Amino acid sequence: MSGGFSKCRSVLITGANRGLGLQMVKDLVKSNERPHRVIATARKPADAKDLQDLAGSHSCVHIITLDVTSQASIDTAIQEVTSLVGNEGLNCLINNAAINISSDLGRVSASDMMKNFESNAVSPLMVTKAFLPLLRAAVARSDGMGIHRAAVVNMSSVLGSIQLHWGPGAAFRSYAYRTSKAALNMVTRCLAVDLEPEGILCMALHPGWVRTDMGGPMADMSVEESSSAVLSVIAGLSEKDHGQFRDYMGQTLPW
Amino acid sequence: MSGGFSKCRSVLITGANRGLGLQMVKDLVKSNERPHRVIATARKPADAKDLQDLAGSHSCVHIITLDVTSQASIDTAIQEVTSLVGNEGLNCLINNAAINISSDLGRVSASDMMKNFESNAVSPLMVTKAFLPLLRAAVARSDGMGIHRAAVVNMSSVLGSIQLHWGPGAAFRSYAYRTSKAALNMVTRCLAVDLEPEGILCMALHPGWVRTDMGGPMADMSVEESSSAVLSVIAGLSEKDHGQFRDYMGQTLPW
Repeated sequence: MSGGFSKCRSVLITGANRGLGLQMVKDLVKSNERPHRVIATARKPADAKDLQDLAGSHSCVHIITLDVTSQASIDTAIQEVTSLVGNEGLNCLINNAAINISSDLGRVSASDMMKNFESNAVSPLMVTKAFLPLLRAAVARSDGMGIHRAAVVNMSSVLGSIQLHWGPGAAFRSYAYRTSKAALNMVTRCLAVDLEPEGILCMALHPGWVRTDMGGPMADMSVEESSSAVLSVIAGLSEKDHGQFRDYMGQTLPW
Repeated sequence: MSGGFSKCRSVLITGANRGLGLQMVKDLVKSNERPHRVIATARKPADAKDLQDLAGSHSCVHIITLDVTSQASIDTAIQEVTSLVGNEGLNCLINNAAINISSDLGRVSASDMMKNFESNAVSPLMVTKAFLPLLRAAVARSDGMGIHRAAVVNMSSVLGSIQLHWGPGAAFRSYAYRTSKAALNMVTRCLAVDLEPEGILCMALHPGWVRTDMGGPMADMSVEESSSAVLSVIAGLSEKDHGQFRDYMGQTLPW
Protein backbone atom coordinates (compact mmCIF):
# COMPACT_ATOMS: atom_id res chain seq x y z
CA MET A 1 0.00 0.00 0.00
CA SER A 2 3.05 2.26 -0.05
CA GLY A 3 3.28 2.51 -3.82
CA GLY A 4 2.33 6.17 -3.68
CA PHE A 5 5.77 6.90 -2.32
CA SER A 6 7.32 6.74 -5.77
CA LYS A 7 6.51 10.42 -6.16
CA CYS A 8 8.41 11.12 -2.93
CA ARG A 9 12.18 11.38 -3.38
CA SER A 10 13.05 11.31 0.32
CA VAL A 11 11.30 10.38 3.54
CA LEU A 12 12.69 10.63 7.05
CA ILE A 13 11.23 8.63 9.95
CA THR A 14 12.26 9.35 13.54
CA GLY A 15 12.32 6.56 16.11
CA ALA A 16 12.80 3.96 13.38
CA ASN A 17 14.72 1.47 15.49
CA ARG A 18 11.63 -0.52 16.49
CA GLY A 19 7.85 -0.73 16.45
CA LEU A 20 5.86 1.16 13.86
CA GLY A 21 8.84 3.28 12.77
CA LEU A 22 10.90 0.20 11.89
CA GLN A 23 7.96 -1.46 10.13
CA MET A 24 7.38 1.62 7.97
CA VAL A 25 11.03 1.48 6.85
CA LYS A 26 10.64 -2.24 6.05
CA ASP A 27 7.46 -1.64 4.04
CA LEU A 28 8.91 1.30 2.14
CA VAL A 29 12.04 -0.52 1.00
CA LYS A 30 10.18 -3.64 -0.14
CA SER A 31 7.73 -1.61 -2.25
CA ASN A 32 8.21 -1.51 -6.01
CA GLU A 33 7.59 2.21 -5.95
CA ARG A 34 9.80 3.11 -3.07
CA PRO A 35 11.19 6.56 -2.40
CA HIS A 36 14.71 7.28 -3.55
CA ARG A 37 15.93 7.68 0.03
CA VAL A 38 14.51 6.32 3.28
CA ILE A 39 16.25 8.09 6.14
CA ALA A 40 15.74 6.21 9.40
CA THR A 41 16.78 7.85 12.64
CA ALA A 42 17.49 6.17 15.95
CA ARG A 43 18.86 7.43 19.23
CA LYS A 44 21.38 4.58 19.34
CA PRO A 45 21.87 3.08 15.86
CA ALA A 46 24.41 0.59 17.24
CA ASP A 47 21.58 -1.09 19.18
CA ALA A 48 19.21 -1.08 16.18
CA LYS A 49 20.11 -4.48 14.72
CA ASP A 50 17.06 -4.81 12.44
CA LEU A 51 17.63 -1.36 11.03
CA GLN A 52 21.31 -2.12 10.42
CA ASP A 53 20.33 -5.27 8.52
CA LEU A 54 17.88 -3.33 6.36
CA ALA A 55 20.49 -0.71 5.53
CA GLY A 56 22.97 -3.44 4.71
CA SER A 57 20.65 -5.01 2.13
CA HIS A 58 19.00 -1.85 0.75
CA SER A 59 21.12 1.03 -0.44
CA CYS A 60 18.17 3.43 -0.21
CA VAL A 61 18.14 3.15 3.60
CA HIS A 62 20.29 5.64 5.50
CA ILE A 63 20.60 5.48 9.25
CA ILE A 64 21.13 8.74 11.10
CA THR A 65 21.75 9.17 14.82
CA LEU A 66 19.08 11.40 16.36
CA ASP A 67 18.02 12.00 19.94
CA VAL A 68 14.96 14.17 19.31
CA THR A 69 15.16 15.70 22.79
CA SER A 70 18.65 17.10 22.16
CA GLN A 71 19.11 20.25 20.07
CA ALA A 72 22.78 19.37 19.55
CA SER A 73 21.77 15.97 18.20
CA ILE A 74 19.13 17.58 15.94
CA ASP A 75 21.73 20.03 14.60
CA THR A 76 24.18 17.24 13.79
CA ALA A 77 21.45 15.16 12.13
CA ILE A 78 20.44 18.10 9.94
CA GLN A 79 23.99 18.39 8.64
CA GLU A 80 24.10 14.69 7.78
CA VAL A 81 20.71 14.70 6.09
CA THR A 82 21.60 17.85 4.15
CA SER A 83 24.72 16.21 2.79
CA LEU A 84 22.60 13.19 1.79
CA VAL A 85 19.74 14.97 0.00
CA GLY A 86 21.56 18.07 -1.23
CA ASN A 87 19.48 20.54 -3.22
CA GLU A 88 16.57 18.14 -3.52
CA GLY A 89 15.55 18.80 0.07
CA LEU A 90 13.30 16.53 2.13
CA ASN A 91 9.82 15.59 0.90
CA CYS A 92 8.37 13.86 3.93
CA LEU A 93 9.20 14.18 7.62
CA ILE A 94 7.47 11.61 9.84
CA ASN A 95 7.75 12.56 13.50
CA ASN A 96 7.25 9.08 14.89
CA ALA A 97 9.62 8.95 17.90
CA ALA A 98 7.61 9.03 21.13
CA ILE A 99 7.50 7.68 24.64
CA ASN A 100 4.57 6.46 26.71
CA ILE A 101 4.67 7.10 30.42
CA SER A 102 1.26 5.94 31.55
CA SER A 103 0.13 6.97 34.97
CA ASP A 104 -3.25 7.42 36.55
CA LEU A 105 -4.29 10.22 38.90
CA GLY A 106 -2.85 8.56 41.98
CA ARG A 107 0.59 8.00 40.46
CA VAL A 108 1.09 10.83 37.97
CA SER A 109 4.02 13.12 38.80
CA ALA A 110 5.14 16.46 37.42
CA SER A 111 8.23 14.69 36.11
CA ASP A 112 6.13 12.16 34.14
CA MET A 113 4.17 15.02 32.61
CA MET A 114 7.27 16.99 31.65
CA LYS A 115 9.14 14.03 30.14
CA ASN A 116 6.23 12.90 28.00
CA PHE A 117 5.56 16.46 26.87
CA GLU A 118 9.21 16.99 25.96
CA SER A 119 9.49 13.84 23.83
CA ASN A 120 6.02 13.79 22.28
CA ALA A 121 5.19 17.46 21.69
CA VAL A 122 8.26 19.68 22.03
CA SER A 123 10.66 17.42 20.13
CA PRO A 124 8.46 17.12 17.00
CA LEU A 125 8.25 20.93 16.98
CA MET A 126 12.00 21.43 17.33
CA VAL A 127 12.78 18.70 14.78
CA THR A 128 10.33 20.19 12.28
CA LYS A 129 11.70 23.68 12.85
CA ALA A 130 15.23 22.44 12.21
CA PHE A 131 14.24 20.58 9.03
CA LEU A 132 12.37 23.57 7.55
CA PRO A 133 15.22 24.59 5.21
CA LEU A 134 15.21 21.08 3.70
CA LEU A 135 11.40 21.01 3.45
CA ARG A 136 11.48 24.42 1.77
CA ALA A 137 14.06 23.19 -0.71
CA ALA A 138 11.71 20.34 -1.65
CA VAL A 139 8.72 22.68 -1.91
CA ALA A 140 10.46 24.75 -4.54
CA ARG A 141 10.54 21.79 -6.92
CA SER A 142 6.80 21.09 -7.21
CA ASP A 143 3.21 22.36 -6.79
CA GLY A 144 0.18 21.43 -4.67
CA MET A 145 0.41 19.77 -1.26
CA GLY A 146 1.51 16.26 -0.39
CA ILE A 147 4.54 14.00 -0.14
CA HIS A 148 5.46 14.73 -3.77
CA ARG A 149 6.31 18.19 -2.46
CA ALA A 150 6.80 18.62 1.33
CA ALA A 151 4.84 17.18 4.22
CA VAL A 152 5.19 16.90 7.99
CA VAL A 153 3.33 13.97 9.54
CA ASN A 154 3.10 13.99 13.33
CA MET A 155 2.28 10.57 14.71
CA SER A 156 -0.38 11.42 17.26
CA SER A 157 -2.96 9.19 18.96
CA VAL A 158 -6.70 9.02 19.39
CA LEU A 159 -5.79 9.16 23.09
CA GLY A 160 -4.86 12.79 22.44
CA SER A 161 -8.42 13.65 21.42
CA ILE A 162 -9.86 15.75 24.25
CA GLN A 163 -13.40 15.36 22.91
CA LEU A 164 -13.22 11.56 22.69
CA HIS A 165 -11.85 11.28 26.25
CA TRP A 166 -15.31 10.84 27.74
CA GLY A 167 -17.70 7.95 28.32
CA PRO A 168 -16.53 4.84 26.43
CA GLY A 169 -13.39 6.69 25.22
CA ALA A 170 -12.21 7.28 28.76
CA ALA A 171 -11.23 3.72 29.64
CA PHE A 172 -7.49 4.29 29.32
CA ARG A 173 -6.25 6.60 32.07
CA SER A 174 -2.94 8.27 31.40
CA TYR A 175 -2.46 11.91 32.24
CA ALA A 176 1.06 12.23 30.86
CA TYR A 177 0.56 10.39 27.56
CA ARG A 178 -2.87 11.82 26.73
CA THR A 179 -1.78 15.36 27.57
CA SER A 180 1.40 15.09 25.49
CA LYS A 181 -0.60 13.97 22.44
CA ALA A 182 -3.22 16.72 22.84
CA ALA A 183 -0.28 19.12 23.03
CA LEU A 184 1.21 17.58 19.86
CA ASN A 185 -2.11 18.15 18.13
CA MET A 186 -1.95 21.85 18.99
CA VAL A 187 1.68 21.99 17.82
CA THR A 188 0.53 20.38 14.55
CA ARG A 189 -2.21 22.96 14.12
CA CYS A 190 0.18 25.84 14.88
CA LEU A 191 2.67 24.49 12.32
CA ALA A 192 -0.08 24.01 9.75
CA VAL A 193 -1.15 27.64 10.12
CA ASP A 194 2.43 28.85 9.69
CA LEU A 195 3.52 26.50 6.92
CA GLU A 196 0.42 26.73 4.71
CA PRO A 197 1.60 29.85 2.84
CA GLU A 198 4.82 28.00 2.00
CA GLY A 199 2.98 24.97 0.64
CA ILE A 200 4.26 22.59 3.33
CA LEU A 201 1.54 20.16 4.40
CA CYS A 202 1.31 19.39 8.13
CA MET A 203 -1.12 16.99 9.80
CA ALA A 204 -1.59 14.68 12.81
CA LEU A 205 -2.09 10.95 12.28
CA HIS A 206 -3.41 8.25 14.64
CA PRO A 207 -1.84 4.92 13.64
CA GLY A 208 -4.33 2.74 15.51
CA TRP A 209 -3.74 0.81 18.69
CA VAL A 210 -0.80 -1.33 17.66
CA ARG A 211 0.84 -4.41 19.19
CA THR A 212 4.28 -2.87 19.78
CA ASP A 213 6.39 -2.38 22.89
CA MET A 214 4.42 0.83 23.36
CA GLY A 215 0.92 -0.44 22.58
CA GLY A 216 1.30 -3.71 24.47
CA PRO A 217 0.11 -7.24 23.59
CA MET A 218 -3.63 -6.48 23.92
CA ALA A 219 -3.69 -3.92 21.11
CA ASP A 220 -6.05 -4.64 18.24
CA MET A 221 -3.77 -4.16 15.22
CA SER A 222 -0.54 -5.84 14.19
CA VAL A 223 2.34 -3.51 13.41
CA GLU A 224 2.19 -4.73 9.79
CA GLU A 225 -1.50 -3.77 9.48
CA SER A 226 -0.90 -0.36 11.00
CA SER A 227 2.16 0.40 8.89
CA SER A 228 0.39 -0.55 5.68
CA ALA A 229 -2.63 1.60 6.50
CA VAL A 230 -0.57 4.56 7.74
CA LEU A 231 1.69 4.58 4.66
CA SER A 232 -1.37 4.47 2.43
CA VAL A 233 -2.84 7.52 4.18
CA ILE A 234 0.49 9.37 3.99
CA ALA A 235 0.91 8.53 0.30
CA GLY A 236 -2.49 10.03 -0.44
CA LEU A 237 -2.15 13.23 1.59
CA SER A 238 -3.36 16.37 -0.16
CA GLU A 239 -4.59 19.91 0.59
CA LYS A 240 -7.74 18.53 2.23
CA ASP A 241 -5.64 16.86 4.96
CA HIS A 242 -3.61 19.95 5.80
CA GLY A 243 -3.98 20.93 9.46
CA GLN A 244 -6.24 17.94 10.14
CA PHE A 245 -6.26 14.99 12.58
CA ARG A 246 -6.84 11.69 10.76
CA ASP A 247 -6.76 8.04 11.70
CA TYR A 248 -5.11 5.13 9.83
CA MET A 249 -8.20 4.86 7.62
CA GLY A 250 -7.97 8.53 6.70
CA GLN A 251 -11.05 9.33 8.80
CA THR A 252 -11.21 12.66 10.63
CA LEU A 253 -10.84 12.59 14.40
CA PRO A 254 -12.19 15.38 16.63
CA TRP A 255 -9.66 17.42 18.57
CA MET B 1 -22.71 39.00 39.91
CA SER B 2 -20.93 36.92 42.53
CA GLY B 3 -23.94 36.55 44.82
CA GLY B 4 -24.14 32.86 44.05
CA PHE B 5 -21.06 32.35 46.17
CA SER B 6 -23.08 32.53 49.39
CA LYS B 7 -23.63 28.78 49.05
CA CYS B 8 -19.86 28.31 48.86
CA ARG B 9 -18.11 28.27 52.22
CA SER B 10 -14.57 28.50 50.89
CA VAL B 11 -12.93 29.42 47.60
CA LEU B 12 -9.23 29.35 46.80
CA ILE B 13 -7.76 31.35 43.91
CA THR B 14 -4.16 30.82 42.79
CA GLY B 15 -2.16 33.69 41.29
CA ALA B 16 -4.32 36.23 43.14
CA ASN B 17 -1.63 38.89 43.48
CA ARG B 18 -2.65 40.72 40.28
CA GLY B 19 -4.79 40.72 37.17
CA LEU B 20 -7.93 38.62 37.03
CA GLY B 21 -7.06 36.65 40.18
CA LEU B 22 -6.84 39.83 42.27
CA GLN B 23 -10.03 41.25 40.75
CA MET B 24 -11.96 38.08 41.59
CA VAL B 25 -10.86 38.38 45.23
CA LYS B 26 -11.97 42.05 45.24
CA ASP B 27 -15.36 41.20 43.74
CA LEU B 28 -15.95 38.29 46.08
CA VAL B 29 -15.26 40.26 49.26
CA LYS B 30 -17.45 43.22 48.27
CA SER B 31 -20.40 40.98 47.47
CA ASN B 32 -23.27 40.80 49.98
CA GLU B 33 -23.34 37.06 49.57
CA ARG B 34 -19.66 36.36 49.81
CA PRO B 35 -18.13 33.05 50.69
CA HIS B 36 -17.08 32.49 54.28
CA ARG B 37 -13.43 32.29 53.30
CA VAL B 38 -11.60 33.64 50.27
CA ILE B 39 -8.16 32.08 50.17
CA ALA B 40 -5.84 34.02 47.88
CA THR B 41 -2.48 32.56 46.99
CA ALA B 42 0.56 34.38 45.67
CA ARG B 43 4.12 33.32 45.02
CA LYS B 44 5.44 36.31 46.95
CA PRO B 45 2.74 37.74 49.24
CA ALA B 46 5.17 40.40 50.50
CA ASP B 47 5.08 41.96 47.01
CA ALA B 48 1.29 41.72 46.72
CA LYS B 49 0.38 45.13 48.17
CA ASP B 50 -3.25 45.21 46.90
CA LEU B 51 -3.89 41.76 48.26
CA GLN B 52 -2.39 42.71 51.64
CA ASP B 53 -4.69 45.74 51.77
CA LEU B 54 -7.73 43.59 51.01
CA ALA B 55 -6.81 41.11 53.72
CA GLY B 56 -6.28 43.96 56.16
CA SER B 57 -9.79 45.31 55.61
CA HIS B 58 -11.68 42.01 55.12
CA SER B 59 -11.30 39.22 57.64
CA CYS B 60 -12.63 36.66 55.15
CA VAL B 61 -9.51 37.05 53.00
CA HIS B 62 -6.60 34.76 53.80
CA ILE B 63 -3.31 35.05 51.96
CA ILE B 64 -1.29 31.88 51.47
CA THR B 65 2.16 31.61 49.93
CA LEU B 66 2.10 29.27 46.94
CA ASP B 67 4.50 28.73 44.07
CA VAL B 68 2.41 26.36 41.97
CA THR B 69 5.50 24.95 40.23
CA SER B 70 7.00 23.74 43.52
CA GLN B 71 5.71 20.56 45.17
CA ALA B 72 7.27 21.64 48.48
CA SER B 73 5.37 24.93 48.28
CA ILE B 74 2.14 23.10 47.42
CA ASP B 75 2.62 20.77 50.40
CA THR B 76 3.14 23.68 52.78
CA ALA B 77 0.12 25.54 51.38
CA ILE B 78 -2.08 22.48 51.86
CA GLN B 79 -1.16 22.36 55.54
CA GLU B 80 -2.03 26.01 55.99
CA VAL B 81 -5.34 25.75 54.12
CA THR B 82 -6.24 22.60 56.05
CA SER B 83 -5.75 24.39 59.33
CA LEU B 84 -7.96 27.23 58.04
CA VAL B 85 -10.90 25.24 56.72
CA GLY B 86 -10.72 22.22 59.00
CA ASN B 87 -13.38 19.55 58.47
CA GLU B 88 -15.39 21.77 56.14
CA GLY B 89 -12.94 21.18 53.35
CA LEU B 90 -12.61 23.36 50.25
CA ASN B 91 -15.63 24.04 48.01
CA CYS B 92 -14.03 25.77 45.06
CA LEU B 93 -10.49 25.63 43.72
CA ILE B 94 -9.77 28.14 40.95
CA ASN B 95 -6.50 27.32 39.16
CA ASN B 96 -5.85 30.82 37.87
CA ALA B 97 -2.04 31.20 38.15
CA ALA B 98 -0.47 31.10 34.71
CA ILE B 99 2.30 32.54 32.60
CA ASN B 100 2.31 33.66 28.99
CA ILE B 101 5.49 33.13 27.02
CA SER B 102 4.45 34.13 23.53
CA SER B 103 6.72 33.14 20.71
CA ASP B 104 6.18 32.54 17.03
CA LEU B 105 7.74 29.76 14.96
CA GLY B 106 10.98 31.62 14.40
CA ARG B 107 11.59 32.32 18.08
CA VAL B 108 9.97 29.44 19.97
CA SER B 109 12.42 27.37 22.00
CA ALA B 110 12.12 24.05 23.81
CA SER B 111 12.65 25.97 27.05
CA ASP B 112 9.67 28.29 26.32
CA MET B 113 7.50 25.28 25.63
CA MET B 114 8.54 23.47 28.81
CA LYS B 115 8.14 26.48 31.11
CA ASN B 116 4.69 27.37 29.85
CA PHE B 117 3.58 23.74 30.03
CA GLU B 118 4.89 23.40 33.58
CA SER B 119 3.09 26.50 34.90
CA ASN B 120 -0.12 26.29 32.89
CA ALA B 121 -0.84 22.56 32.63
CA VAL B 122 1.27 20.53 35.07
CA SER B 123 0.89 22.87 38.04
CA PRO B 124 -2.94 22.95 37.97
CA LEU B 125 -2.85 19.13 37.92
CA MET B 126 -0.44 18.87 40.84
CA VAL B 127 -2.30 21.56 42.84
CA THR B 128 -5.64 19.83 42.25
CA LYS B 129 -4.19 16.47 43.17
CA ALA B 130 -2.83 17.89 46.42
CA PHE B 131 -6.15 19.58 47.31
CA LEU B 132 -8.21 16.44 46.68
CA PRO B 133 -8.51 15.53 50.38
CA LEU B 134 -9.99 18.98 51.09
CA LEU B 135 -12.32 18.82 48.08
CA ARG B 136 -13.45 15.36 49.18
CA ALA B 137 -14.16 16.68 52.68
CA ALA B 138 -16.42 19.35 51.15
CA VAL B 139 -18.16 16.81 48.88
CA ALA B 140 -19.23 14.78 51.88
CA ARG B 141 -21.34 17.67 53.17
CA SER B 142 -23.72 18.11 50.21
CA ASP B 143 -25.28 16.66 47.02
CA GLY B 144 -25.26 17.47 43.31
CA MET B 145 -22.42 19.24 41.55
CA GLY B 146 -21.27 22.84 41.86
CA ILE B 147 -19.52 25.29 44.15
CA HIS B 148 -21.98 24.50 46.96
CA ARG B 149 -20.21 21.13 47.05
CA ALA B 150 -16.78 20.85 45.37
CA ALA B 151 -15.55 22.27 42.08
CA VAL B 152 -12.25 22.67 40.27
CA VAL B 153 -12.17 25.54 37.76
CA ASN B 154 -9.17 25.62 35.45
CA MET B 155 -8.68 29.05 33.90
CA SER B 156 -7.98 28.12 30.30
CA SER B 157 -8.13 30.25 27.15
CA VAL B 158 -9.86 30.20 23.80
CA LEU B 159 -6.29 30.22 22.49
CA GLY B 160 -6.10 26.64 23.75
CA SER B 161 -8.87 25.54 21.38
CA ILE B 162 -7.18 23.45 18.67
CA GLN B 163 -10.29 23.58 16.48
CA LEU B 164 -10.59 27.39 16.63
CA HIS B 165 -6.90 27.85 15.80
CA TRP B 166 -7.61 28.14 12.06
CA GLY B 167 -8.62 30.89 9.67
CA PRO B 168 -9.72 34.00 11.59
CA GLY B 169 -8.88 32.31 14.91
CA ALA B 170 -5.25 31.90 13.95
CA ALA B 171 -4.19 35.54 14.15
CA PHE B 172 -2.34 35.19 17.45
CA ARG B 173 0.76 33.04 17.03
CA SER B 174 2.14 31.55 20.20
CA TYR B 175 3.33 27.98 20.24
CA ALA B 176 4.15 27.82 23.95
CA TYR B 177 1.01 29.51 25.30
CA ARG B 178 -1.49 27.85 22.97
CA THR B 179 0.03 24.42 23.52
CA SER B 180 0.05 24.83 27.30
CA LYS B 181 -3.66 25.72 27.32
CA ALA B 182 -4.60 22.84 25.00
CA ALA B 183 -2.68 20.62 27.42
CA LEU B 184 -4.58 22.14 30.36
CA ASN B 185 -7.83 21.32 28.59
CA MET B 186 -6.79 17.66 28.37
CA VAL B 187 -5.75 17.71 32.04
CA THR B 188 -9.19 19.13 32.85
CA ARG B 189 -10.91 16.39 30.90
CA CYS B 190 -8.77 13.69 32.56
CA LEU B 191 -9.59 15.10 36.00
CA ALA B 192 -13.30 15.33 35.13
CA VAL B 193 -13.36 11.65 34.16
CA ASP B 194 -11.65 10.64 37.40
CA LEU B 195 -13.49 12.98 39.79
CA GLU B 196 -17.03 12.48 38.46
CA PRO B 197 -17.72 9.37 40.59
CA GLU B 198 -16.75 11.39 43.66
CA GLY B 199 -19.10 14.27 42.80
CA ILE B 200 -16.30 16.81 42.27
CA LEU B 201 -17.06 19.10 39.34
CA CYS B 202 -14.15 19.97 37.05
CA MET B 203 -14.24 22.29 34.02
CA ALA B 204 -12.15 24.65 31.88
CA LEU B 205 -13.10 28.33 31.64
CA HIS B 206 -12.03 31.00 29.14
CA PRO B 207 -12.19 34.40 30.89
CA GLY B 208 -12.14 36.49 27.71
CA TRP B 209 -9.29 38.56 26.36
CA VAL B 210 -8.64 40.83 29.31
CA ARG B 211 -6.64 44.03 29.70
CA THR B 212 -4.16 42.73 32.28
CA ASP B 213 -0.36 42.46 32.31
CA MET B 214 -0.88 39.15 30.52
CA GLY B 215 -3.55 40.21 28.02
CA GLY B 216 -1.96 43.55 27.17
CA PRO B 217 -3.57 46.97 26.57
CA MET B 218 -5.31 46.00 23.30
CA ALA B 219 -7.52 43.35 24.91
CA ASP B 220 -11.27 43.84 24.51
CA MET B 221 -12.49 43.40 28.11
CA SER B 222 -11.65 45.22 31.31
CA VAL B 223 -10.56 43.06 34.20
CA GLU B 224 -13.72 44.15 36.07
CA GLU B 225 -15.97 42.96 33.23
CA SER B 226 -14.16 39.64 32.97
CA SER B 227 -14.16 39.00 36.72
CA SER B 228 -17.87 39.74 37.01
CA ALA B 229 -18.74 37.44 34.11
CA VAL B 230 -16.40 34.66 35.22
CA LEU B 231 -17.68 34.67 38.81
CA SER B 232 -21.25 34.52 37.51
CA VAL B 233 -20.42 31.45 35.42
CA ILE B 234 -18.62 29.80 38.34
CA ALA B 235 -21.50 30.55 40.73
CA GLY B 236 -23.92 28.80 38.36
CA LEU B 237 -21.86 25.70 37.62
CA SER B 238 -23.80 22.44 37.70
CA GLU B 239 -23.65 18.86 36.38
CA LYS B 240 -24.11 20.11 32.80
CA ASP B 241 -20.79 21.97 32.97
CA HIS B 242 -18.78 19.04 34.29
CA GLY B 243 -15.89 18.15 31.97
CA GLN B 244 -16.74 21.03 29.61
CA PHE B 245 -14.92 24.04 28.14
CA ARG B 246 -16.94 27.26 28.57
CA ASP B 247 -16.32 30.93 27.99
CA TYR B 248 -17.14 33.86 30.31
CA MET B 249 -20.72 33.88 28.98
CA GLY B 250 -21.14 30.21 29.79
CA GLN B 251 -21.05 29.29 26.09
CA THR B 252 -19.43 26.02 25.04
CA LEU B 253 -16.09 26.24 23.25
CA PRO B 254 -14.83 23.44 20.98
CA TRP B 255 -11.68 21.61 22.05
